[in-house]
Amino acid sequence: MTYAQMSAEERKAEYARLQKEFDDLKAKGLNLNMARGKPGKAQLDLVSDIFSLMQDPKDYVSDGIDVRNYGEMSGLPAAKRLFAEILGCKPERVLVGGNASLQLMYDTISKAYTHGLLRSERPWCREEKVKWLCPAPGYDRHFKITESFGFELITIPMTDYGPDMDAVEEAVKDPAVKGIWCVPKYSNPDGIIYSDETIRRMAALKPAAPDFIIMWDNAYCIHEFEGDYVEFPDILALCEEAGNADMVFEFASTSKVTLPGAGISCFACSEANMAYMEKLLTIQTISFDKVNQQRHVLYLKDKAHTLELMKKHAAIMGPKFRAVVDALDKEIAPLDIASWSRPKGGYFVSLNAMPGTAKRTLALCKEAGVTMTGAGATFPYGKDPQDSNIRIAPSLPPVEELEQAIAILCVCLKLSALEKLGI
Amino acid sequence: MTYAQMSAEERKAEYARLQKEFDDLKAKGLNLNMARGKPGKAQLDLVSDIFSLMQDPKDYVSDGIDVRNYGEMSGLPAAKRLFAEILGCKPERVLVGGNASLQLMYDTISKAYTHGLLRSERPWCREEKVKWLCPAPGYDRHFKITESFGFELITIPMTDYGPDMDAVEEAVKDPAVKGIWCVPKYSNPDGIIYSDETIRRMAALKPAAPDFIIMWDNAYCIHEFEGDYVEFPDILALCEEAGNADMVFEFASTSKVTLPGAGISCFACSEANMAYMEKLLTIQTISFDKVNQQRHVLYLKDKAHTLELMKKHAAIMGPKFRAVVDALDKEIAPLDIASWSRPKGGYFVSLNAMPGTAKRTLALCKEAGVTMTGAGATFPYGKDPQDSNIRIAPSLPPVEELEQAIAILCVCLKLSALEKLGI
Repeated sequence: MTYAQMSAEERKAEYARLQKEFDDLKAKGLNLNMARGKPGKAQLDLVSDIFSLMQDPKDYVSDGIDVRNYGEMSGLPAAKRLFAEILGCKPERVLVGGNASLQLMYDTISKAYTHGLLRSERPWCREEKVKWLCPAPGYDRHFKITESFGFELITIPMTDYGPDMDAVEEAVKDPAVKGIWCVPKYSNPDGIIYSDETIRRMAALKPAAPDFIIMWDNAYCIHEFEGDYVEFPDILALCEEAGNADMVFEFASTSKVTLPGAGISCFACSEANMAYMEKLLTIQTISFDKVNQQRHVLYLKDKAHTLELMKKHAAIMGPKFRAVVDALDKEIAPLDIASWSRPKGGYFVSLNAMPGTAKRTLALCKEAGVTMTGAGATFPYGKDPQDSNIRIAPSLPPVEELEQAIAILCVCLKLSALEKLGI
Repeated sequence: MTYAQMSAEERKAEYARLQKEFDDLKAKGLNLNMARGKPGKAQLDLVSDIFSLMQDPKDYVSDGIDVRNYGEMSGLPAAKRLFAEILGCKPERVLVGGNASLQLMYDTISKAYTHGLLRSERPWCREEKVKWLCPAPGYDRHFKITESFGFELITIPMTDYGPDMDAVEEAVKDPAVKGIWCVPKYSNPDGIIYSDETIRRMAALKPAAPDFIIMWDNAYCIHEFEGDYVEFPDILALCEEAGNADMVFEFASTSKVTLPGAGISCFACSEANMAYMEKLLTIQTISFDKVNQQRHVLYLKDKAHTLELMKKHAAIMGPKFRAVVDALDKEIAPLDIASWSRPKGGYFVSLNAMPGTAKRTLALCKEAGVTMTGAGATFPYGKDPQDSNIRIAPSLPPVEELEQAIAILCVCLKLSALEKLGI
C-alpha cells in the first residue's frame, strides 16, 4: 500500500512507528557525510604508485622539455596527447592546466567578464545584462560561478536525454544569453548521458549572441562504474561541422581518476579560441605544474591504460551505488513517495522526493547525523521551485557507513512524506 | 681613457676593432639565453630528493587531513606554518595556493576588477579610471597584469632605498590610484632591499582610495646568493601598526627554492582580507594541490632547513653573478659608458647603458646569438623613457656559457656607446 492510499489513521500509526525508529537512529550519534562527490579512501589508495614516479632523471624530460623548469604555458605535449586521446579531440586543441578544471572554468568566465571572449563585441562587464542557461538539476558550483558574476541564471529543464533543447533553442534567441553549463556524460546529479540528438542540436545552435559559449564540462568522461566504457562524441568536431567551431570550451580533469585536487586538468577548444586564450593566460601565469603533468603522463600512459584504472575505481564505486539504489527500491519504491536515477557512471544519484519535502527530509537527516548536499543546491540560486530534488553522493563513506546513512535517509523521506500527506 | 675622452679618430679605430671582434663572435653561431630568471639545471638537480617523498602512507596525512582528497581551500595548516615562519607573519594570515604566486597576484587584481576588494566601494570595472603605481625599473609581468586590465600605469622612480616615497605619497592623494607593485627584497631588476624607512612610509601611507592595495611580492625573501640571510620586517604587522591592516597582500613562492612552476605559492593578508578572499576563492576552486603542499612541508621542514637549501642555491648562483659583475668591472667600468647593480640576492643584475643605447645594444646581442630581456621591459608599457635599462638574468646558463654571453654583451655595449658618441 502506498502512503497516498493509506487512511489518515494508518499514516498516523506509520508516522509514530517511524518516529521511534528515527529516535533510535539519532541516539546512535552518527556523523556520516554524503554531501560531496569526494572519492573514498580506497580509491585514493588505488593510485599510490603515482608517488613512486619521477625517480629517474630521464623522467624529468618530456619531448625534450625539462618539466622541472618554467615554460610551456599550454602544457606538456605528452599531457595534451593523453587528454586528446581520452576526449577524442586533436592534441593541438588541448591546454593542460593545474589541479582543478573548476579553476579553468572560472577563469574562462572571468576572462569573458574582464576581457571578453574571442567573438565578443565587448567584455561582459560592459554588457547591460548577461543571462546564462542552467540545465537543472545541475551542478551547484557551476551555477555559483555564473551567479557570482551577476549573470541572470535561467533554468532549463533536464529531460532523460539532456537539457530540453526546445527550451535552449528558444532561449538563445535572446542576445543577452551568453552561454550554457553542460555535464554531458553522467550529468551531475541525474547521471544522464546526453543523447546524440541533444548533442547534435547543441552543436548546431544559432545563438543571437556572437560570443555565446557552451561550457562542456566532461567531468565524468571515463567514469563508468557499471558496464563498459561508453564512447562519446567529440563536441569540438561537431561544433566545427555545424559552423560553430568557436562556440564551445570542453573541460576535463583527473581529479576522479588519480587524486582529487592533486590531479591535472584541461580545456579543449578551437585553434582560434586557443590562440586568444593563450594570449590572455600568458599574462596570468608562466606555466602550470608540468611536474605533475609528467607524473600523470607516466602513470596513466594512454587511454586504454587509464580505462583499466577506471575499472578498479568502478569495483569500489559500483557496490556503493547499488547499496543506495537497492535500499531505495526496497524501502521507498512501494510507498510511491519518490523517484530516483539509476546511473551507470558519474558520482551521484538524483532523487526526487515528494514535492515540498526535500528541505524537511534533509533537515531530519542532519538531525540524525547525516550530512547531504543542501536541498535546492542543484538549482540556480539554490532554489528548487519544487523543493523536491536531493543529490545523493555515495562515493566517500565505506559501504557499511553508507548503508547506515541511506537507511536514515529512507526513514527521513518517509517521515517528511507523511507530514506532507497529513498525519 | 673613457670613450667620451677619446677623440673621434680614436673612437673610429676602437669601433673598427670591436666590429671585427663582434663578427668573430657572431661567426661562432652561439645561442645563449639570459632573458628570464630561470634557475639553471644544477639548481633543479639540487632538489631531486623531493621526488622520493610521499612513499609512506603516514605521509598522506597532515594535521589529520588526508592531503589526497578535496578540501582545505586555504591550504594545509602545516604549509601555512612553513610560509608564516619564512615571512615572519602569523600562520592564520597565510593562504597556500598552487604552483605560481603570479597566478595569485593576477587573481587578486582580477577579483578587485570583477568583485572589488574588501574596502572597495564598487568593483574596479565600474570605476571610471583606475591608476596603478609601478616603481621602475621593475618586473615586466607585474606591469603587464595591471596593463591588461586597462589601468593607467604611473612610473615611480626607484632609488637606492626602494621606490621614491615622496612620489608615492604624492601619487596616492589621487583617489583613482588603487595600488602599487613592490618587490621589496632584492627588487627585480635592481636587487635593492627596501630600507626600513621606505617600508615604514609604505605601511603608513594614507591613500585617498579606501581600497588602495600594496602588492608586496616578496619573491626573493630568502634568496641571498652572497653573504648571510638578511632579516626582513613583516609588512603585515607594520601596516597593522599604522592602522592599515587591510592595505597589503604579500606574496611568495618556492619556485626558486624547489622547482620553478612546480612549487607552492602563498599570499598573506589581514584576517578581514582573508575572510573576504576565501569567500570569493571558494567559488573558484575546491582546493589547491595539497599533495604538493605536503611534499614541500616534508622536504623543506622549516625556515632553518630551507635556508640551508638556499645556501646550496647560492653556491651555484654566486659565481654566475660574480662572472657578470667582474666582466662589467673589467670591460666596461674604465670606459664610463654604463653603471650596474651589485646585488647580494635575487635573480638579476640591472644595467644602465648610455641613454639611448639599450635597444641597439640588445639588437646587437641578438645578432650575435644572445637573447636578453627586451629593452624597455622593466618599464610600464615596455617603454623605457631613457632607453637605458638592461636586465641581465644570469641564472640559467652554465658559467662557461654565461662568460661567453657577457663578453658579447660587453662588446655590444661598447659598439652602441661609440655609435651614440659619434664615430
